[in-house]
Amino acid sequence: MKKVAVIMGSDSDLPVVSKAIDTLKNFGVPFEVHVFSAHRTPVEARDFSLSAREKGFGAIIAAAGKAAHLAGAIAANTTLPVIGIPVKSSTLDGLDALLSTVQMPGGIPVATVAIDGAQNAALLAVQILSVEDKALADKLLKSREENAKKVLEKNAAIEKEYQN
Amino acid sequence: MKKVAVIMGSDSDLPVVSKAIDTLKNFGVPFEVHVFSAHRTPVEARDFSLSAREKGFGAIIAAAGKAAHLAGAIAANTTLPVIGIPVKSSTLDGLDALLSTVQMPGGIPVATVAIDGAQNAALLAVQILSVEDKALADKLLKSREENAKKVLEKNAAIEKEYQN
Amino acid sequence: MKKVAVIMGSDSDLPVVSKAIDTLKNFGVPFEVHVFSAHRTPVEARDFSLSAREKGFGAIIAAAGKAAHLAGAIAANTTLPVIGIPVKSSTLDGLDALLSTVQMPGGIPVATVAIDGAQNAALLAVQILSVEDKALADKLLKSREENAKKVLEKNAAIEKEYQN
Amino acid sequence: MKKVAVIMGSDSDLPVVSKAIDTLKNFGVPFEVHVFSAHRTPVEARDFSLSAREKGFGAIIAAAGKAAHLAGAIAANTTLPVIGIPVKSSTLDGLDALLSTVQMPGGIPVATVAIDGAQNAALLAVQILSVEDKALADKLLKSREENAKKVLEKNAAIEKEYQN
Amino acid sequence: MKKVAVIMGSDSDLPVVSKAIDTLKNFGVPFEVHVFSAHRTPVEARDFSLSAREKGFGAIIAAAGKAAHLAGAIAANTTLPVIGIPVKSSTLDGLDALLSTVQMPGGIPVATVAIDGAQNAALLAVQILSVEDKALADKLLKSREENAKKVLEKNAAIEKEYQN
Amino acid sequence: MKKVAVIMGSDSDLPVVSKAIDTLKNFGVPFEVHVFSAHRTPVEARDFSLSAREKGFGAIIAAAGKAAHLAGAIAANTTLPVIGIPVKSSTLDGLDALLSTVQMPGGIPVATVAIDGAQNAALLAVQILSVEDKALADKLLKSREENAKKVLEKNAAIEKEYQN
Amino acid sequence: MKKVAVIMGSDSDLPVVSKAIDTLKNFGVPFEVHVFSAHRTPVEARDFSLSAREKGFGAIIAAAGKAAHLAGAIAANTTLPVIGIPVKSSTLDGLDALLSTVQMPGGIPVATVAIDGAQNAALLAVQILSVEDKALADKLLKSREENAKKVLEKNAAIEKEYQN
Amino acid sequence: MKKVAVIMGSDSDLPVVSKAIDTLKNFGVPFEVHVFSAHRTPVEARDFSLSAREKGFGAIIAAAGKAAHLAGAIAANTTLPVIGIPVKSSTLDGLDALLSTVQMPGGIPVATVAIDGAQNAALLAVQILSVEDKALADKLLKSREENAKKVLEKNAAIEKEYQN
Repeated sequence: MKKVAVIMGSDSDLPVVSKAIDTLKNFGVPFEVHVFSAHRTPVEARDFSLSAREKGFGAIIAAAGKAAHLAGAIAANTTLPVIGIPVKSSTLDGLDALLSTVQMPGGIPVATVAIDGAQNAALLAVQILSVEDKALADKLLKSREENAKKVLEKNAAIEKEYQN
Repeated sequence: MKKVAVIMGSDSDLPVVSKAIDTLKNFGVPFEVHVFSAHRTPVEARDFSLSAREKGFGAIIAAAGKAAHLAGAIAANTTLPVIGIPVKSSTLDGLDALLSTVQMPGGIPVATVAIDGAQNAALLAVQILSVEDKALADKLLKSREENAKKVLEKNAAIEKEYQN
Repeated sequence: MKKVAVIMGSDSDLPVVSKAIDTLKNFGVPFEVHVFSAHRTPVEARDFSLSAREKGFGAIIAAAGKAAHLAGAIAANTTLPVIGIPVKSSTLDGLDALLSTVQMPGGIPVATVAIDGAQNAALLAVQILSVEDKALADKLLKSREENAKKVLEKNAAIEKEYQN
Repeated sequence: MKKVAVIMGSDSDLPVVSKAIDTLKNFGVPFEVHVFSAHRTPVEARDFSLSAREKGFGAIIAAAGKAAHLAGAIAANTTLPVIGIPVKSSTLDGLDALLSTVQMPGGIPVATVAIDGAQNAALLAVQILSVEDKALADKLLKSREENAKKVLEKNAAIEKEYQN
Repeated sequence: MKKVAVIMGSDSDLPVVSKAIDTLKNFGVPFEVHVFSAHRTPVEARDFSLSAREKGFGAIIAAAGKAAHLAGAIAANTTLPVIGIPVKSSTLDGLDALLSTVQMPGGIPVATVAIDGAQNAALLAVQILSVEDKALADKLLKSREENAKKVLEKNAAIEKEYQN
Repeated sequence: MKKVAVIMGSDSDLPVVSKAIDTLKNFGVPFEVHVFSAHRTPVEARDFSLSAREKGFGAIIAAAGKAAHLAGAIAANTTLPVIGIPVKSSTLDGLDALLSTVQMPGGIPVATVAIDGAQNAALLAVQILSVEDKALADKLLKSREENAKKVLEKNAAIEKEYQN
Repeated sequence: MKKVAVIMGSDSDLPVVSKAIDTLKNFGVPFEVHVFSAHRTPVEARDFSLSAREKGFGAIIAAAGKAAHLAGAIAANTTLPVIGIPVKSSTLDGLDALLSTVQMPGGIPVATVAIDGAQNAALLAVQILSVEDKALADKLLKSREENAKKVLEKNAAIEKEYQN
Repeated sequence: MKKVAVIMGSDSDLPVVSKAIDTLKNFGVPFEVHVFSAHRTPVEARDFSLSAREKGFGAIIAAAGKAAHLAGAIAANTTLPVIGIPVKSSTLDGLDALLSTVQMPGGIPVATVAIDGAQNAALLAVQILSVEDKALADKLLKSREENAKKVLEKNAAIEKEYQN
């Protein structure tokens, strides 16, 4: 199976990113976790990106805050799908990271998820791998059904509590 | 090869979406184009999404403006990767469509590209298909090199013009 | 009397939504409370909406956060008035939910109230039912008068405290 | 049948508001059109609102731009449902009118539609009247079906044009 | 001397507004404090405004949050200068109150100060009264000098602490 | 009678500012017009402000765009009421000028009107002068009545046109 | 004298950037102009940046739109001062480019000027070179005086025209 | 060596500004710290700026919040590079200070860094001084390498922890 890379721009992004790691584990998808900074370790970020496809990766998740260039910098050096997680920092409520990640110029797409949306970033990576992997597609469907079931259970509890 | 679906919420989105269609053609990726509205034809939008994987699709592009629910409504009914294009309309400069597309709740990701970013949506779909398709990966690399060459040519022209 | 449905997209919206429930109770309006997710339980959300009018509902309140599609998804499947409560979440201060709820495309209106404005959502539902229900109209008028009285009492207290 | 009032804060809002008038005509709903300014003719705005219910109105649509207080000023003087249309003006792309209309304090709701969303304002008024009017409910359903049909026809045309 | 009225839309605005009251006291300007709501006690708000000039007021300060119509509603009923304080509430960080207060349509100005800027609202009122009151003008100048002195003292302390 | 100063930061602001000049003329209020830049001619801006009160001014209107410091720079050098007009420029739709003008720190108020709100700036200046000038107060009231009459006439025309 | 580099992310930025080039010419500062894209020609952008100091540059101006990473990507590879010009594109009025340029994480500063502020970017570069270049400092002072003179002339013309 | 001035608009900005002071100390760059307010002590702010170049300064850092005019007011009175730090205050999450600092009109640039970006402001000042100071340039390079090393160490730790 192809691997998923989870890259964060700073180890301070780990509390957000850990939900992506947990989700990948739950789906049994092999992954690697790295701290590469688009600005402080640009060489490592580039080298990783350039060789990611041949090393067996199928998708790269990149999380960064503020003027979040990490996902774009990685996407500039690979043609693998790159998933960007804009991370909320202490000012502007995540809007800066969102716009810096999603508003990519023509030619270099970044698949952007919600601010701090690490779980969805991992799910998107799994969905990408599932295109050619029926077992993974089945797991995704099952996971969806379980989530739906949880909502239905909560619905049942709340319907009961608020019986008029 | 897996197909790509290009869905728009209204035929008024066609001028934006057509760049996605052109890009898919350039890469020789098979595709279908549809007009499904999350709000006006929800049944068709859902039915298409539920059967998209078994019909041979590998990615779905969904373009919509304002309170753009289309990509999310499709993503709720398939585990294929769904790529959202927020379309700028007559008010708020596309911010409404961007937030309505990208800020998806946990469990249902939408891979969001820039406002009116139809070319990148198609490129992202091609990149997703390229994960297991070496020929497509090679085409992407070649396309990147051609784009780089164009930038370098423009650089050469401008360097010449502004020789100090 | 027609009933009011109170739908929330997640049980985590309950602290906001509970003010709507309390208000409906205060007016003696019959209601039902449900947890339906536009994205995780789309079938249940749709089925409820399609049959809401025949089941005796007169208005539906829908509360959701982030890319808040719930109210729109319900409105797409009923011609009853649908009232949307945008719920503030951990990023963007509720702006995402507001725009996702209010900026509906032509044809499918959602009556949007303030971010976290659950009390007003319930009052709006009561006002809708009051159009053909004189007793309810009288209750609304009385409630307004009581609220005005409270403001006047606070005014009297503050005028006294700050007598110059 | 109850009437619908269409109030605009300035006759310069007429190009936006006219879509509401056309929609009400299409549904055969009786209506009145007025120009009342919350700030320049506050007495007329208030007097109209205070007597609207007894004059046979079932809903009031109020359109205004900038610091759009009109809908709120009307809502403060009636317990009928008041529908607010935020009108885009020459600065801030309608955001000022949207926030001034939708962010109403507890006790006085305004059912807000999209910026310049006059058609939806009228549809919402019709939906409110339809709660106790089966004929109107049937008309709404038929109108929805016609809109869906139009989308399907456009879909058919575009599917044909972009047959791959 | 003319009086200054300090009006708040809700007694929950008192913690913000109290800085205005303190400032007026410091300048020895006579004032009155009231709680009038544009939406919940519109009659009292209007009646106060209509008679404010003849009652000896020279300026009116109005503080309100969210869709803050209070200052505009008062300004619509008096030709005295009305000073608006947008009050920050639990969502949108005060932007809603700011736009609702400052973006007044032509004909009815509101002199808007910063979000939660109660001290400046009072100073502005004092400055307005000072136009024809030399003693007050002198007090303002003296207050400015004292403020400058405080800044200079802090400067001296910090210069000393950070002597390089 | 006290004079009003109308200051613009650049002569490119004249199309906006001219509405203020016209309004002052209409009220027969004496005025002066100047181009002073907070950044390019700070000495002139300061010198004018320091001597404005003794030269017989009663209010100063300052119009500027982008990082609009003009009103604040003037306010820092006079205790006369300073009225700020944020001017919309080619980017950000006037939001930059609005926040730069209205968000003044404690101690130095600027009475801010709407973006490009030159007419209201002049009216506010007239209202400030009217506090101690009964004739001006009467003119303001008469002007308000004329404006109301115009709205009523438009109302009559539109009521007639849209008679249902 | 040290040279200034003017880098644009795309030749479509030239209309904005040309004002920077003109300004550098006016000051007689040697410069080079290049088109390097952070995403499409990352190698060229990096190589230029790594060798810029030894090639005799004293400052680098970088202009880019949307998710504008160019200035940051250059700054990551040089310790020369990098000046970022956020370029307005077809959506979001330049806010995306502004936040992507200015909100740089700790360690890698970008000296950001206004959206489309190419003239100021060049002036800032000249000011940086002037720190150790008295002749340039004198030219800057003279330029300021000429600008002030132009404002004063416009002031004189307008004072004359609007003599009351 | 040229000195760097660190100016704050209020001593309440010290917690933000102290990171700039620490950074300058780390680089052994001589500096002065002052509290000058553009609005409360404009004379001191101007006098300092006018003589800064001749007193041996090479760059001026100015930090202020809200309608942050300090950096612009200093820049208007010197041709030295002025670096602006927008400081986040209690409302609007720093957006007001950012726009007030960065959106400077043509002729008077301010080199703006991120909201609360004091460390980067100091680094930028050091980079400016480094243009003609090889020792400083070497220190900057060494500091970059140390920062990169820290990121690489964190990367190593996290790679180890999340070995799959």
